[in-house]
Amino acid sequence: MPNISMKLLAKELGLSLSTVSKVFTDSHEISEQTKQKVLAMAKQLNYVPNPYASSLRKRKSKTIAVVLPEVADSFFSVAINGIESIAREKGYHVLIYLTHELFDREQAILADFQSGRVDGVLISVSNGTTNDSHINDMMQRGIPVVFFDRVCEETATTRITTNDRESGRLATQHLLENGCKRIAFLTLSESLSISRNRLDGCRQALAAHRLIFQENDLVLCTDKDADNRDIIKRLLQRKDRPDGIIASVEKLTAGVYLACRDLKMVIPKDVKVISFSNQSTAPILNPSLTTITQPAFEMGKAAAAALFNNLKRNNQQYKPETIVVPSVLVPRESTTGVHQG
Amino acid sequence: MPNISMKLLAKELGLSLSTVSKVFTDSHEISEQTKQKVLAMAKQLNYVPNPYASSLRKRKSKTIAVVLPEVADSFFSVAINGIESIAREKGYHVLIYLTHELFDREQAILADFQSGRVDGVLISVSNGTTNDSHINDMMQRGIPVVFFDRVCEETATTRITTNDRESGRLATQHLLENGCKRIAFLTLSESLSISRNRLDGCRQALAAHRLIFQENDLVLCTDKDADNRDIIKRLLQRKDRPDGIIASVEKLTAGVYLACRDLKMVIPKDVKVISFSNQSTAPILNPSLTTITQPAFEMGKAAAAALFNNLKRNNQQYKPETIVVPSVLVPRESTTGVHQG
Repeated sequence: MPNISMKLLAKELGLSLSTVSKVFTDSHEISEQTKQKVLAMAKQLNYVPNPYASSLRKRKSKTIAVVLPEVADSFFSVAINGIESIAREKGYHVLIYLTHELFDREQAILADFQSGRVDGVLISVSNGTTNDSHINDMMQRGIPVVFFDRVCEETATTRITTNDRESGRLATQHLLENGCKRIAFLTLSESLSISRNRLDGCRQALAAHRLIFQENDLVLCTDKDADNRDIIKRLLQRKDRPDGIIASVEKLTAGVYLACRDLKMVIPKDVKVISFSNQSTAPILNPSLTTITQPAFEMGKAAAAALFNNLKRNNQQYKPETIVVPSVLVPRESTTGVHQG
Repeated sequence: MPNISMKLLAKELGLSLSTVSKVFTDSHEISEQTKQKVLAMAKQLNYVPNPYASSLRKRKSKTIAVVLPEVADSFFSVAINGIESIAREKGYHVLIYLTHELFDREQAILADFQSGRVDGVLISVSNGTTNDSHINDMMQRGIPVVFFDRVCEETATTRITTNDRESGRLATQHLLENGCKRIAFLTLSESLSISRNRLDGCRQALAAHRLIFQENDLVLCTDKDADNRDIIKRLLQRKDRPDGIIASVEKLTAGVYLACRDLKMVIPKDVKVISFSNQSTAPILNPSLTTITQPAFEMGKAAAAALFNNLKRNNQQYKPETIVVPSVLVPRESTTGVHQG
């Protein structure tokens, strides 16, 4: 049964289009009796008001956009769950956009929002994002933006992060306490704030143990697993090879495990491994993987809640805030050699 | 800089609102000269047409909805990638909705679409979906629906599936060829078409080997990992315990591995395991996991392409079709005991 138009509904009722329209905006100009009559006929004829007409009237789309680098990473999948749970509660719809780590795609996606498609934006920026002018443009047009996980540090808006620097420090300290002398840091990007912060924490922990981070121990990987396997093999074949590895991004874990297998190196005897990862399979890897686990669901929820607070305030008296939801280090066999329950 | 209205733009140009409006619908009634003049002033004043106004005029939202049970499963994350790649190509926006396996939530989500928010729907139904009246309602209102992965088999619309029955058969045959005599089948739902088809394939393969599937080897698990670990432990402690396990859903893998660890049972010596899974960590599990890998990205792409074909035809001469994108069995140590490269 197709949707009938408001015009047809008005005709059926013998009322003016404007009267019927006012019923659906719940106008005080219309008597309760007329309202009931219109709503009863609407139900009978199966009339449903068009949400975009309502969006135009109220200048609200009841829609938010979530802009992500990718969804195959379990952090982002779980974060979407958190975002969706809050959006549903608030009666909002969620548009998903993937940048695939491309800055120009991120810019094009945001440019499209300026026309009023969305009321607000949650974004985790791409590896390639080098400036924030596209984000400032949005905010100047009155569309609030909240960062989560991957942020532009100079932008004056709310950001939801985890304690990346502290986690980098803890990961490194954990490797040192388990006997490592030389630690390599695998990353997908040298410019991304979260990578830089995790690396800073690593340097700090080394310095606290009177060790210096060697620049050739900073290893730039790619988004291709096969390439990373080779890159990590070359790292592990160096004369001055590391005895501890920090994978600063979940997707680098497989490369480390496969490179060790290729080289017949045993984790954790020959090299200890810790990964920033939310993968549910960490406990059943061979060996089980020590992780820094990010609070993905909580970060998604906090980001959505912050955005809705902004929308409620209608950008009045906007005070950007930084909310830090801490990560957790879960020690397993890949660093301790100790079998877990 | 906030968006200016079309009214203000018309005023600045000394033209009627209707003339300016026709420029943005590219009406043939307007001369090329006037068009250029309006577009130049629009650019100068930073006027962007509201997409919802355009939606109302064209009765098209340029938006599709993707309704999923969850996103933490890597099949669905990868499928979203495939869907998004096609939607972007077509200039469409993608709304994401999660049912969390609840039938009433799925019904509520679809009911909301009837107001014209979306032009079409891609859906993978929840575990709890017992009938298709909510889907038929949508289609009767002229909103096309395409199923992918989890389908309602009686609904007359296009469905994109993988070869579930054949994959269940292959998985079982693979276990039998590797020496299994008694096979348990773990599932999250007895009503879901994909589960039933995979189980049918399992029964077929057993029958071909003159074996009968024992009904107590069909094990209903839950969406809680801790519960599943206990359920699988009870299965493996039975006197007539299986020597082969098919996990028909990715998320059941961890329960099997952890139950074996708790019971000090060795995979594949004591029990062989194969899982329907798209997890990138399958090769680095302990032991590496034999999988039936579904073509998630291709299925997402095929589903989106089928939906856009439907939209183009405007539901005229609609012929439902079933597209089967085959899965692949990847043998690894958890069934063969043979170390993989």
